[in-house]
Order: sequence, then structure tokens, then C-alpha cells
Amino acid sequence: MKRICLINPNTTRSMTDACADAAKLVVGDRLHIEAITVASGPESIEGHYDGAVASVGLMETLMANPDADGYIIACFDDTGLDAARCLVNAPVVGMGEAAFHIASLVSHRFAVITTLSRSVPIIQHNLERYGLSRRCAGVLATDIPVLALESDDGEAEKRIEEQMVRAKALGAEAVVLGCAGMVSMTRRLSEKFGMPVVDGITGAAGLVGTLIDLGIATAKLGGYAAPVSKAYHGTLSSFGTAAD
Amino acid sequence: MKRICLINPNTTRSMTDACADAAKLVVGDRLHIEAITVASGPESIEGHYDGAVASVGLMETLMANPDADGYIIACFDDTGLDAARCLVNAPVVGMGEAAFHIASLVSHRFAVITTLSRSVPIIQHNLERYGLSRRCAGVLATDIPVLALESDDGEAEKRIEEQMVRAKALGAEAVVLGCAGMVSMTRRLSEKFGMPVVDGITGAAGLVGTLIDLGIATAKLGGYAAPVSKAYHGTLSSFGTAAD
Amino acid sequence: MKRICLINPNTTRSMTDACADAAKLVVGDRLHIEAITVASGPESIEGHYDGAVASVGLMETLMANPDADGYIIACFDDTGLDAARCLVNAPVVGMGEAAFHIASLVSHRFAVITTLSRSVPIIQHNLERYGLSRRCAGVLATDIPVLALESDDGEAEKRIEEQMVRAKALGAEAVVLGCAGMVSMTRRLSEKFGMPVVDGITGAAGLVGTLIDLGIATAKLGGYAAPVSKAYHGTLSSFGTAAD
Amino acid sequence: MKRICLINPNTTRSMTDACADAAKLVVGDRLHIEAITVASGPESIEGHYDGAVASVGLMETLMANPDADGYIIACFDDTGLDAARCLVNAPVVGMGEAAFHIASLVSHRFAVITTLSRSVPIIQHNLERYGLSRRCAGVLATDIPVLALESDDGEAEKRIEEQMVRAKALGAEAVVLGCAGMVSMTRRLSEKFGMPVVDGITGAAGLVGTLIDLGIATAKLGGYAAPVSKAYHGTLSSFGTAAD
Amino acid sequence: MKRICLINPNTTRSMTDACADAAKLVVGDRLHIEAITVASGPESIEGHYDGAVASVGLMETLMANPDADGYIIACFDDTGLDAARCLVNAPVVGMGEAAFHIASLVSHRFAVITTLSRSVPIIQHNLERYGLSRRCAGVLATDIPVLALESDDGEAEKRIEEQMVRAKALGAEAVVLGCAGMVSMTRRLSEKFGMPVVDGITGAAGLVGTLIDLGIATAKLGGYAAPVSKAYHGTLSSFGTAAD
Amino acid sequence: MKRICLINPNTTRSMTDACADAAKLVVGDRLHIEAITVASGPESIEGHYDGAVASVGLMETLMANPDADGYIIACFDDTGLDAARCLVNAPVVGMGEAAFHIASLVSHRFAVITTLSRSVPIIQHNLERYGLSRRCAGVLATDIPVLALESDDGEAEKRIEEQMVRAKALGAEAVVLGCAGMVSMTRRLSEKFGMPVVDGITGAAGLVGTLIDLGIATAKLGGYAAPVSKAYHGTLSSFGTAAD
Repeated sequence: MKRICLINPNTTRSMTDACADAAKLVVGDRLHIEAITVASGPESIEGHYDGAVASVGLMETLMANPDADGYIIACFDDTGLDAARCLVNAPVVGMGEAAFHIASLVSHRFAVITTLSRSVPIIQHNLERYGLSRRCAGVLATDIPVLALESDDGEAEKRIEEQMVRAKALGAEAVVLGCAGMVSMTRRLSEKFGMPVVDGITGAAGLVGTLIDLGIATAKLGGYAAPVSKAYHGTLSSFGTAAD
Repeated sequence: MKRICLINPNTTRSMTDACADAAKLVVGDRLHIEAITVASGPESIEGHYDGAVASVGLMETLMANPDADGYIIACFDDTGLDAARCLVNAPVVGMGEAAFHIASLVSHRFAVITTLSRSVPIIQHNLERYGLSRRCAGVLATDIPVLALESDDGEAEKRIEEQMVRAKALGAEAVVLGCAGMVSMTRRLSEKFGMPVVDGITGAAGLVGTLIDLGIATAKLGGYAAPVSKAYHGTLSSFGTAAD
Repeated sequence: MKRICLINPNTTRSMTDACADAAKLVVGDRLHIEAITVASGPESIEGHYDGAVASVGLMETLMANPDADGYIIACFDDTGLDAARCLVNAPVVGMGEAAFHIASLVSHRFAVITTLSRSVPIIQHNLERYGLSRRCAGVLATDIPVLALESDDGEAEKRIEEQMVRAKALGAEAVVLGCAGMVSMTRRLSEKFGMPVVDGITGAAGLVGTLIDLGIATAKLGGYAAPVSKAYHGTLSSFGTAAD
Repeated sequence: MKRICLINPNTTRSMTDACADAAKLVVGDRLHIEAITVASGPESIEGHYDGAVASVGLMETLMANPDADGYIIACFDDTGLDAARCLVNAPVVGMGEAAFHIASLVSHRFAVITTLSRSVPIIQHNLERYGLSRRCAGVLATDIPVLALESDDGEAEKRIEEQMVRAKALGAEAVVLGCAGMVSMTRRLSEKFGMPVVDGITGAAGLVGTLIDLGIATAKLGGYAAPVSKAYHGTLSSFGTAAD
Repeated sequence: MKRICLINPNTTRSMTDACADAAKLVVGDRLHIEAITVASGPESIEGHYDGAVASVGLMETLMANPDADGYIIACFDDTGLDAARCLVNAPVVGMGEAAFHIASLVSHRFAVITTLSRSVPIIQHNLERYGLSRRCAGVLATDIPVLALESDDGEAEKRIEEQMVRAKALGAEAVVLGCAGMVSMTRRLSEKFGMPVVDGITGAAGLVGTLIDLGIATAKLGGYAAPVSKAYHGTLSSFGTAAD
Repeated sequence: MKRICLINPNTTRSMTDACADAAKLVVGDRLHIEAITVASGPESIEGHYDGAVASVGLMETLMANPDADGYIIACFDDTGLDAARCLVNAPVVGMGEAAFHIASLVSHRFAVITTLSRSVPIIQHNLERYGLSRRCAGVLATDIPVLALESDDGEAEKRIEEQMVRAKALGAEAVVLGCAGMVSMTRRLSEKFGMPVVDGITGAAGLVGTLIDLGIATAKLGGYAAPVSKAYHGTLSSFGTAAD
């Protein structure tokens, strides 16, 4: 059976497990999902800094798993996505881009609901790069920390519902939930608000499965050409070990 | 088994068959492809006029097949796609948009190679609407009539290869083949030119399959709301019967 | 005297008459307006589906009236406009595009007030295609059905005035009324709100008259090339006769 | 009879006369064209500097002719157009914008052929401001000085024809001739190259005539509000008298 | 010592002095600032008309001061900036563009707070031309006349603070103060609202100083080529002397 | 004296030295340049992968040098720029963005000449993010490896000159040299081709000096907010030590 390698670029294993469970529901019958938590990196990816320091751990993980038939980067910011496409031969799909493309297939305009306002410019940049910013009615922040999504007091859902209301008012016909931790809420929110609610993990699983089915891999003659050298000089130690 | 209804909005059955064969290779194991040729319409869709007159036949076909789990519009111009989304509840994917989204997942920039230069503005408009025009390095015409693609003298492939060379020179890292009749050439061209070559029919099959797997249907609270009335007043006769 | 053929692509004759009366006020002295209601089509054009099914009736009407010196498509969504330009040699102007171009000549930014929210994405797509979306401060829906505009209870005007206030708040300096049924209100609204209010029918009459005066017809060497064949295979009957 | 004031913002009277003759052919029967050459300004407008110094003479001329029913700025760069709209109540149309709007009504994409390459960025800026840059396939310079267009040696036409060929290769379906001095060539070029060739002066005459017919004047509640004061402090002498 | 010529294109000397004082704080140690008020022009620049009539006085001033090492146009609308670049060889920086570029270096999105709403479209046009409109979250007007900024009753600051609150709500991370008269407030507002507040005069002083340090002057082979002739025909008298 | 920390995010010290020398020529009199080579990272940054793996070393270097008055990221791809802005309080300027902003102040359109074609999409993405893509006439690759720029056989300059010619043909009025190793060629190329040639290192030195002079630091209330935690879990070892 063909194999999809789902990599969580932060070190929180419970988040990896939740992503894997969701992805398996979509493609589990015909494709094997192998979920991997990076060995080193930030605990969650909240903003530019976390994304930058997560890159090396992500590259290490890819190099240690070079033979999958497809890869999913399980971070809504699509951290390291372009670099990953240079490093491996099989197709790679980011959780954010997957959600945006899926939402584009079922609505004229969609909104994105994310956790922290510091993530808003990152998501806006990605939308611009992908070309899909004109399809987006707004990137809305709930200001819930990523890890708080895992607690059970209902505050997270209340804040997400407030942003669902705002999304509708902005003319969005569909909503993308912009955080791996929100995956369990999609069905309920979709029913309550009467609009498609798209999660990136399941979307990425579907899209990378499609690329595998189609036999289409990443272009290698331009910006995604394989690195001339993967060498990395010196050692990284000053803050890596301290925080372990 | 869930069922995808693939509709060819022109009346050329051999083209429907070729599309169905290609689509089945992608999803045949887990989804049933039901290929339908419209009962009435133009022989091929080459330009704005053909697209406009094809719409009614397409709507009739959709109304006669309301229960599929997903729909593919097998025309690279995505003729009638928006109207189809209003009419049925299951997800609908166009052959053109499918190819553009797939190509966006494996390249920074792609080129589109189509048949007639009169189709170029239509494809450019679609790319702008979808937001993906900035991902497109150029829409290139071979000036081969759609039906001539089915002949065997090699002229069609020669002209397509000329445009492959041009696509590379424009900085495209992948190529979309913009005509249902080109589906059989993708693998050979991809190998010869060392770049992904994306066909819309197989792409649409993969994407609508993904939407079915994800349980995501078209948004119905905005521009894709169901028609208030499907009624059509008067009869269409003056040129329909004449050409039959 | 030169002759403009004004075609209403829906089957409601009272709307055709109102459009013709408005157009005649603009060009009646020097150009003859011949107003035609399509023989078959939807009762009003509200959304993508109605636009798609209206296309064939519109093409039939154009083929039956090939000799006018200019054409107006009397539908704010510019239904079938591109196809019409392929089919006839004389210039064709759509009601929506006319209003947008006129408003661009007298304001930095304009707003569009239309009837149903399902028409908003269609108008936004058209503005993007024409290039004028950046001139538009917003497309606002009153949520009045098109045919209700003809009733006399004042509700329609009240809702339009609410959107006039909103248009000003969005920074619009002029307003386009986005429905054929709103033509009678332009002068009163313009005076009450102190800003230009542009109607598409009179705008289209003026612009197609200008194109006739200039001797400029549609380009025929690219996307508007004449159809290779106007043939239409099969008959359209399943829902056409039923609704008659 | 209503009166259009056509103002040439450079001091070359022969150019004013040629513009007036062209404009009269379009609207002469129903509207009076009054052509005025500014009393002071540059001999021709070639680039940013000429445009800037032409503004004061243009404003003086407008203040001396406040009662026209419409105004044409007979300079392809639309010099002083925005300021003119603030100063007078009747509608004002620039020669450049008129040509771009007209070309947009008859083609998917048009090219602009102008005289000097130093004018190219000015025209590109205007297209961006108007929103029509995406309709433009290219702004091409012949590198003929404006006044040389009036000589008779055929060199000017040869260079323009070279750019017509280039325009077609860029995918333009229509061409805008971007200089007042080119007005006499439109018909011949259109026939030779089989595509619409749009001149701005006749276009502006048609469009301002349309605005007059429609009773639509410039919006006055935003950026085109009347100046708080028209006062100008000090005298302008250092280079004005020297060059006279 | 190298010399920057700061030109105020309106005739209000107190505004020139305030600009010069601010600019000297930035570059005074290493570059000489020579502040010049135009001899003729409007009292303040509020809208398109004032900008147009200010151009000739600005050009006269530049011609009388041809030997500076750099120039600042001390008007937030960047009046006459392009023409100035044609006329002199040393680099020229406008107050508006300077502020936009500076704000782009310290924030994802910035807002612009200006005085009159009639200036909003001018600033929006400039942002579009420079390419920085996508970096701008909104151009907000306080509706304080430029000269009223010099009075001391606190009304001006109150209105600016209201717009600071609005800027934050629009997602701006930094604010540009869009008027020469606001320069004294930047530090206090920045501290109160906890975000960078950028003033154009000091920004322009820094940027033109940088261009001088780098030895980079304006490109002269395209749109900024030197005028073929600086001649101006006729005299300007009708409203210049009257208002003096 | 205030202190600028110039960080080379690759491990090639000779490149750091060349950058430092260039930067000192610009600001050496009034600001101290402290040039630092990262302790760990790739030998040069050529493409997405190198950029991603360089990020951690760059963050370590910033954390070890938290007290500078300003920072320069000496990599044309602006690697890690956004993350750096989150991490330190003083302003940070990237070499690429500096060059684009400087070129925007002296030309309508500029071209970028870089080394490898795999860097082209990275530079295009950055231009889009900054908003300056519309100011760019093209990103052109010489296909010289970064380190080969340091050899002396003239091949590098020959290839750069070929692209200078191409840049002019594309309508560029200025050229940005897109690689740290090209800094020594700017003056000669500028003189030979008669157009401004902008280098990013000296540009960044000028711009960060300006930000220091203006007292303007990075906005901290949105996407550049300080990281909640700088902690990094686990150790990075698998390829770091191997390549040392």
C-alpha cells in the first residue's frame, strides 16, 4: 500500500495523533498514513519565530524519511513547505494550502478562522503567494493559544462561533478552520452555521492522495530543484539543549 | 459505491468515452464514474458562443441526473460550472479549475497549452476569477481544432511540443494541457520534457473524489443558492432542430 | 436611421418596455431603438442558473436579428455578452459594463446596489474581468426580488435608500443601480443623496450609440472571432415546454 | 445646442484644430465643439515635466470657460484631468481614458501605441489608476517626437505599423493610438491590420456627449469636491515670459 | 557638506520652517538642509486642484536651485514628484512615498491618517502607483483643514487619536501621519498607542540622505529622462497676480 | 556610537567580510558595523532548502547579540527576516527588501539580476509580499553559483552584462543586483549601462541607519510580536555535526 508521511513540525505528540486520526478517516482504506512528530522544535508554531526555528527539525525528519509516496506538513502556516518540496521527490501538501484550495472549489469567497492575531499576516502572505487572497473574505483571529484548544471548557468553541458569525457578515460562503487543533469541530460548526467548514489536515490528506493517484510529483526544474548540497556546517546547541 | 457523474457538455460521444476512461483510471476502484454526453449542444466547445449554447443542454442533463455524489464538467473552459453548482447539491468540479489547482500544488508557475487562440481569453478569465492567474506563466494556443486532436497524423503532438518548449522559456515549471482531447499525451510529454504535465479530467476526478471523501459540498448560502425557480418559458427550436 | 437592437434576455415584457423607454430618452432622436423580449428563457435573471439557461434564447434572438447597427444586452449581469460579441458584427454593450464604465468617468470609486445577494458574486466577477473591481467600493444587495421592484409599496425604495447610505459610508462617490427594474429611480436618488446615480440601460444606450458614431465594432481576430459553426445538435425540450 | 469645450493643454494650434475636426465628425450635428488652445504652456506634452507645467495654463483656461456642458482634455496623458474635474461642474473626459474605455468595450485585450518611450510609464500609471491595466497587452513606443507626426515623409506611419505588428504578437485584439497627432490614421490602420483602432479624441467626444445625454456630471462629495479656494499666491514669471 | 534642498510647494512659510526643523533633527549633522518656500502657489495643498496649480511654482523653484545633492518635496501628496525627477539630476524623495516605504520596513500593514477626505483618493492613487497599496490597511481622514493643524485648541489631536483607534481596529501595525503639519505629534502618539508612527518629512530626509550616501541618483533613460525643452510659452497672469 | 549588527546567515566568512566592507563605506562614520558570520548553517543560500536550514543559526546569532541598535540580514532572499523582527527590538532590514525599496525611489520599473534560476521564485514571492512586484520588470538569472562570483575569470561579469542588456529590453530603468557577492560591480555596471545599479547590502546599511536616526523600530502589536517562548525542544544533531 502506498504511504503518506504526515509530519507535525512541532513537538506536541497529542497534536500529531489528532491529525493522524483525522487523516486516516479520509484515506485510511487505500493509503497508509505514517504520522511523525519532529524530534526537535518548538512546542507549538505561533508566529514567524516558531516557524523559522521549526524548519531544521522538519528538514531532519524529511531526510530520515525519504521514501514516502507523499508528505503532509501538519501546520496551518505551511511552515517549511517550499523547502520540503526541494528535499523529497514525492508530492508535498501543506495543511493551509490544502484548505484554501478545497474551499475555493465549493465557494466564491471563504473566511479563515485562526487562533492568534500574530498568525494573521503569515496566513495573508500565504494566500497572496498561492494567488488565493482574492478568494478570501477575511482572516479572523480568535486569540486562543494553540494549546488551549485542547482544554475542554467551551471557551475555545464560543470564540470560534463568534468568528463564524463575523465570517458570514463579511460575505464568506465557507469557512476554513486555521489550526490543527480545530479539526474535531468542523462537522458541528458546518451544521450549526449551514456552510461548508474546511479543515486543512483532512484536506491535505485528500489532496496528496489525489496527487499520488494521478502520479504527479513536484516540479524539479525551477525553484523546487533538489539542493546542490544538504550539508549544514557547525552545530546547533545554544538553545536547543537548554530547552529540552 | 458512491457515484460521480461526468458530463461532457458537447455532443461528441468519443470525447466522453476518452474522458471516462481517463477518470476511471484515477478513481475507478472506489467510486463509480458515470459518463454522460449531453443530448443537445454544440459538437465541440470552441470559444464563447459554443460555451453559451452548451449551457441549456448541460442544465437539462444535470436535472435528469440529480442524485450523483459528485459531478465533473468535462470541458476545459468550465462551461456552466457556476450554474451547475446552483442546481445540484453534490460537489461539482470543472476540468479547467481542477488542472489549475493541481498544478499549483506542484509548481511555482505553470503554463496552459490549449487548442485555439479564441479560447485563450476564456481561460485567462477563468484564471483571474479563480485567483490563479498569478500562478500562470502564459496561456499558449497550438491552433489545432479540438476535433483534429483525434486524428493520428502527429501534427497535433508536434504543435503541442512546440508550445512545451515555449512554456519552459516563459519560466513555467509545470504544464496544464487545456483540452479534453489531449489526455492521452500527458505521461509521454512529462517524461520528454522533465516536468509535470497536468490533465484536467483526471485532476477533476481526483478532486471531486476528495470532496466526496471529505463530505464537503458546495456552499448554498451565497451565489450558489438553489434557483428560486428552474422554469424556462417558451420553446427553443429555431436552430436546435435545424442542426440535428 | 441607424438601429440599436435592445434585447431583454428574460421573458418579462414589462421589463423590456421599461428598458426601451429609458433608452429612447437617451438616443431616440438620432438612433432607432428596437426592443425585443426573448421568445424563451427564465422570467427574470437571478443568479448563475438563470444566466446559463438564458443564453440559448439570447443567441436565437441575435441570430434572428443579425442586421442591427448595435446591440444592448438588457441584463445587469451581462448574461451572454461575450457570446453575443462572437455572433454579430455590430458592437454589443452590456448593461452592467456600461454602468461601470460610466461611473468610472465621474468618480474615483463607485458602489453597486443590486437586488439579491446571490447576484453579488456574479457582479464581482464581472468587475474583476473588466478590470474595474478596484474602482468599486462594494457590491451591496437589497435582497428585493427583481420582479418585486415593479410593485408600488415603497419597500423597494426604502431598502435601496438604506444601501445608498451604506455606499457613502464605504467611500463611494457615485452609485450604480444594478438592476433593470431600478431605472426610474436614478434622478430622485441622485438628488436626495447628492451623488451621481448611474443606470445601466441608459448608459448602454449612450455607449453603443458612441461606438456606432465612432464606427468601431468588436474585434474579430481573437476571443470574439465568429463561431466556426452555429450548429446546435439535438433538441431542447425537457424543461422548456414544461414551463411555458 | 449644448456645448463641449475641447481644451488642448499645449500651445500648438494646429494640433487643436486637428482634434476639433475629428471631434466634430463624431458629435458635430447635435453638440457644439468649442476648441481652445491654452494661452500658455509647453509646445507639446512629452513626459512628466511637460504635463506638470501644462497644469496651470489648463486651469486658467477652464476658469475662463466655466459654462460648457462638457469638457475634453485633448492630451493622451490625461494631464490635469483630476484637477479639471474639481474645478468645473460639467463632466470632463480625458483623451487617454476615453480610448481605454472604448477599447475595453470591443476587445478582451488592447495595446497602446504612443510616441516617446518617456510617455510609457505615464500611460501605464494611468491604466493602473483607471483599473484597466489588466486589459492592456502592452504600451509600445514608436520613438517619434509628437510634432514630427505632422510631417509627411511616411517615417511616422512606418514606425506605427511596426508597432501594430508587435501589438498583434502580444495578443492585443484592438489598438489604441496614444497621441493626438495620430488621429488621421485610424481608419487606414484598422483596415490594413483587421482590428479596431481607437483614437482618444473621437472617443472622448463620444463619451462626454454620452455623459451630457445621460445628465450625469462629476461626483462632488469626495476627491472631486470643488476647491476651497482657487487663489494662487505670487506671480509666475521666471520661465514663462522668457520662452514666449 | 552635501546639501539637501527641501521645497515646500505651498506658500505658507511657517509650514516650511516646521518641516525644516524636523528634517534637521535627522540629518543635520552630516548634511545641510536648505528649506525653500515656493514663490508662487496655493496657500496649502488640499486636493487635486491645489496640486495641479502648485506644479509650476515647484518647477520654477527647482530650476532656480539646480545644484543640490538631493531634494525633498515637502507635500504628503508627492505633488510634482515625477516632474521634479525629470528636471534635476540629484535624487528626489517625496514626503508621502518616504513615509510609505519606512512604514513598510517595520510593519506588515500600516494605516495612513490624513486631514481632508478629498485627499484620500490622491493618497490611494499614490499607494497604487508605488505598489504599496496592499501594505495599507486604510487611508483615514480626520477632516481637519491643513492650516487648522497649526492652531492649539486640542481638536486636531483629538480627531487624530480617534483615527489611531480606528487604524488599530483595521489591523494596522503602524501609522503614517499624512500631513506636514502633523510632524510634532509622532513621538507622543507612538508612545500612547504603542505602535510606530511615521512622519514623511523626517522619513524623506533619511531616505534622500541614504540615496546621497549610496551615490544613487534618478534613472534617466526612461520616464525620468530630462525634458527636451524646458520652455514654457505665454505668460501666466490671470489668477496668479489677482490672489497675491 | 550606535551599532548595527550585520549577520551573514551562511557560513562563508569571506562573504561576510565583503558585505561589512561595503556597508562601512556607507555608514562607517556615524554608525558602527559589527559583522557576524553564523556559527552554523549552509555554506551559501541557494534556494528554499538552504534558506530553511539557515533559520536556526540565524536565530541563535540574534539571541547572542540582542543589544544592537539595528540589524542587517545579509542574504538577498531575506531569509528569516520576519522571524528576526519578532526576536529583537531594534529595526531589522533585509538585503533584498532594501534594494527593492531603494530602486523604487529612483525608477519607475527595475529588474533584478540574481545568480541561480532556483532563486527566481523566492525573489518573486518576496516582491509580491512587499507589494513591489508591479515595480519589477523581471527577475533574471545568470546561472552562476553564488560562490563562483568570487573567482576572477570574468565569466560572472560577462553573464551579468548579458542580463543587463536583457533588463533594458524589458523596460527596466534601474537594476538590482541580487546577490551579496555582486556588490563590487555596481559602480562599473552603472557607468557602462547608464542606469542606477542598486546593491542590497549598502542599501540595507543606509535604510537601517535611517530607521535608527528616525528612532523607529519594528511594530510589536501584530505579526511581529515577541515570541511567547523562545524554547526549542530536543537537539539538532543528525546532519549538523556530520557536515562540520
